[in-house]
Amino acid sequence: MREAYHVELENLAERLAGMSGQVADAMERATKAMLESDLELAERVISSDSLVDDARADCEEQAYALLALQAPVATDLRVVLAAIHAAESLERMGDLALHVAKAARRRHPDPVLPENVRPYFAEMGKAAVRLARRAEQVIRTRDVEAARAIETDDDQVDDIHRHLFSVLMDKDWPHGVAAAVDVTLLGRFYERYADHAVSVAKRMVFVVTGRMPGYSATEA
Amino acid sequence: MREAYHVELENLAERLAGMSGQVADAMERATKAMLESDLELAERVISSDSLVDDARADCEEQAYALLALQAPVATDLRVVLAAIHAAESLERMGDLALHVAKAARRRHPDPVLPENVRPYFAEMGKAAVRLARRAEQVIRTRDVEAARAIETDDDQVDDIHRHLFSVLMDKDWPHGVAAAVDVTLLGRFYERYADHAVSVAKRMVFVVTGRMPGYSATEA
Repeated sequence: MREAYHVELENLAERLAGMSGQVADAMERATKAMLESDLELAERVISSDSLVDDARADCEEQAYALLALQAPVATDLRVVLAAIHAAESLERMGDLALHVAKAARRRHPDPVLPENVRPYFAEMGKAAVRLARRAEQVIRTRDVEAARAIETDDDQVDDIHRHLFSVLMDKDWPHGVAAAVDVTLLGRFYERYADHAVSVAKRMVFVVTGRMPGYSATEA
Repeated sequence: MREAYHVELENLAERLAGMSGQVADAMERATKAMLESDLELAERVISSDSLVDDARADCEEQAYALLALQAPVATDLRVVLAAIHAAESLERMGDLALHVAKAARRRHPDPVLPENVRPYFAEMGKAAVRLARRAEQVIRTRDVEAARAIETDDDQVDDIHRHLFSVLMDKDWPHGVAAAVDVTLLGRFYERYADHAVSVAKRMVFVVTGRMPGYSATEA
């Protein structure tokens, strides 16, 4: 029984790692599509989102099967539930990448972003994708050290996001309200994506170590 | 065993209903605090948020105990997991009410919102609170009919949200970019709150009926 349980648990971790990779790719492509007004790439992100939704449903099914067939208790139980929560966050990250891609499509062939804020989004995009890839790495390698770097990347997204707001709020913002609205929402999408990635990584550290690093329920 | 299980499950439902009530109150007060620049009320919402976080932790603990001690299978298992997901959504709704209250505090004694968009927020606030109260009602009374009204309220929030955007995007928006940024984010908070309420209500219908009404994973 225990052996079957651990094989199943490894399969589940493998699927979660796959989802992390999917949503990292999605955000990388969505950011590129937005920055380069690449409609084809935007469409690719949009049509791929259902794969993330499917992967989440698969993870839940597998976790439910584990609970039903193995009836884990104590730490083992928490590990399975952490995986269910992580799958939910990962799906949400996919949705946020989808929102970015849809913004690129909506404004095409015009650029979504005014020239002066593009570097902020290029940086936020890189940091956000790095967060998702680190979460993937933590899941695959069980390298808890890698999880430590996650807070740093998240702080970076928050810093850039704050700078972005100071640019927006500057009285000399010359791009009008419509662009400001787009920039506000897009900034929010990256910030939320990063928050979810941190939440996933922390839950994965818990899966590996049985301990939640500085977990606060509000981050979930 | 089955009897203990059903008593436990009723306790869990009672706690979820309590959480729905808490987050409905929070959004009602946050909206009032924002519309009337009421700092004291905003502070009350801000300091109460930890109670919602605690309630969520309690719900999770109780659900974990149910899983560990009763090892439910099939529909019973799905019911407990639906409750865990609902608790997560409810906590997030509390966070969104908190964001509204913080905006009221940040701008105090100035109003957060320009005069011409206040009616939109008054309406979105009412619809959002109604959604949370309906979710509470569905949980308490197991009245699945009440759940049907939920889609209508959510459509209403989405409609107002769209109108709000057309006001924002109008070339004659006279309130400047900073106000537009606030209005954009606040509108998003109400929209997300409503989405989570719909998700909670659907999961509760599932808890009662064992069937998910038109459930799409992306709504979670």
